[in-house]
Amino acid sequence: MSRDLVVALSGGIGGAKLALGLSHVLAPENLVIIANTGDDFEHLGLSISPDIDTLTYTLAGLDNTTLGWGRRDETWSFMETLATIGGPTWFRLGDRDLALHVERTRRLRAGETLSAITDDVARHWGIGPRILPMSNDPVRTRVRAETGWLDFQDYFVGQQCRPVIDAIAFHGAEAATPHPDALAALASPRLKAVVICPSNPFISVEPILAVPGMRDAIAHCGVPVIAVSPIIGGKAVKGPTAKMMAELGLEVSAAGVAARYGALLTHYMLDHADAGAVVPQRTSVAQTLMTTLEDKIALAKAVLAVIG
Amino acid sequence: MSRDLVVALSGGIGGAKLALGLSHVLAPENLVIIANTGDDFEHLGLSISPDIDTLTYTLAGLDNTTLGWGRRDETWSFMETLATIGGPTWFRLGDRDLALHVERTRRLRAGETLSAITDDVARHWGIGPRILPMSNDPVRTRVRAETGWLDFQDYFVGQQCRPVIDAIAFHGAEAATPHPDALAALASPRLKAVVICPSNPFISVEPILAVPGMRDAIAHCGVPVIAVSPIIGGKAVKGPTAKMMAELGLEVSAAGVAARYGALLTHYMLDHADAGAVVPQRTSVAQTLMTTLEDKIALAKAVLAVIG
Repeated sequence: MSRDLVVALSGGIGGAKLALGLSHVLAPENLVIIANTGDDFEHLGLSISPDIDTLTYTLAGLDNTTLGWGRRDETWSFMETLATIGGPTWFRLGDRDLALHVERTRRLRAGETLSAITDDVARHWGIGPRILPMSNDPVRTRVRAETGWLDFQDYFVGQQCRPVIDAIAFHGAEAATPHPDALAALASPRLKAVVICPSNPFISVEPILAVPGMRDAIAHCGVPVIAVSPIIGGKAVKGPTAKMMAELGLEVSAAGVAARYGALLTHYMLDHADAGAVVPQRTSVAQTLMTTLEDKIALAKAVLAVIG
Repeated sequence: MSRDLVVALSGGIGGAKLALGLSHVLAPENLVIIANTGDDFEHLGLSISPDIDTLTYTLAGLDNTTLGWGRRDETWSFMETLATIGGPTWFRLGDRDLALHVERTRRLRAGETLSAITDDVARHWGIGPRILPMSNDPVRTRVRAETGWLDFQDYFVGQQCRPVIDAIAFHGAEAATPHPDALAALASPRLKAVVICPSNPFISVEPILAVPGMRDAIAHCGVPVIAVSPIIGGKAVKGPTAKMMAELGLEVSAAGVAARYGALLTHYMLDHADAGAVVPQRTSVAQTLMTTLEDKIALAKAVLAVIG
């Protein structure tokens, strides 16, 4: 049996860019994306899965490239009206985006699993690769600020990452069952490599690793495990990665991320800007900033070239 | 104490037109509208109250005069997107309309009552008269067709009233508590008259009367009780009233509606087209078709003139 299966671990925006690149260079059956669900939350009575949705929109070509998040062709009548009746508007939900949340919530309440619903949406939108929630059980990322523990979206969106944090926890992770298809992919004789996308290590990748069995499955998969640095020249491309690293007492650099992953990785992909970084893994260098589709495809090819 | 309080019983579209007329000629504190909630249902996990919403939109000047139902300035991104993921689209929910349903559902789940939420929305939108659900307890209208009992919205929207029906039931009505403010208004020394708006008697008004205590409170209120005929020249202005009357074995006429209400009414308002109708109540004649705002105000004035 040929080793042709790539398993990617991804959070939202940054990870989805590389996942899209990978989807352009791998056959659909040769790519499984394990998505972080630690950002998931309940809002307005709706079950929202931001990273799964970002991956789904991106792979379906429905992502909003103007905003950099959410749905393309979005309209905002719902939020505008919600504001007029005093409803909570701190988390912006577009009218099209809302369809996904309302329908997912309806189906979850009817007893379907998050993964079954994710699969069905992907099928409707013609997405080839499998997007798999790390678990069908709820895992909720929380951060500890001076004022106490905060729900992730309160910190991330509500307070725009302003609070200084000193700890992160993944509530429910210990009791969560990893998605069996994720473990099966990681144990597959077809497995060629594991790619950790350039997502925030603390809030996008580590929740996945916190699900029992997931870290071990990767550590013992016996094939290359490569991470792409989310830090370029000491800065995060987007989001609070750099700020969080500093607050958690880590070196804000590509090397700092590599150190955090440690022995889990066999390989590490740096940007040209960080070519001199000293990291314990075998390193490669590429353009890791992904602006255009061509950038995403080029980085995906560079990653696949490293892992043979 | 002067008798200056008018209590109106109303369903959706037709009733809301007269309620709007009344709101233009009565001081806000002198009009209480008891709304039918028998049409309420749960759809997509949302609690939808069609008649309360029609009254609210109409009195706030937010009704969609082009469609004849729903919200003005409506957009349809949600429904369009829901269709692309295979969600149920038989009941059309606009993006703005959805804000009301999502927020109401959230607040109901948090333990608030339907009436408190209705009041708060009315306050946000500057509505003066009180719109009161007949009960905060769920009452669900069902109709019996050849194939068995149907939920009201399945019959009304899903099957567009095509099934022939031979019975109507108000599930939950017997156990429902009438809204105390509705009973208080009907027992108030300020009560001047009860106006039954030109709504469908079977599915808009009778659910209200089926709530324990409501019919008695009207029957014994000691002031004029006037209904405006929803039938003009043997036809319903809108909706299935005429079709239902025929199927239920009643005479399809303004007189047929008057007979149905019977001794509950002291007065009855007919359209000019039906001026010769013989009914047991004291009758008056006016233009009951309400197309413009002026029509609505004129009919409201005609009704108030009758009851002194």
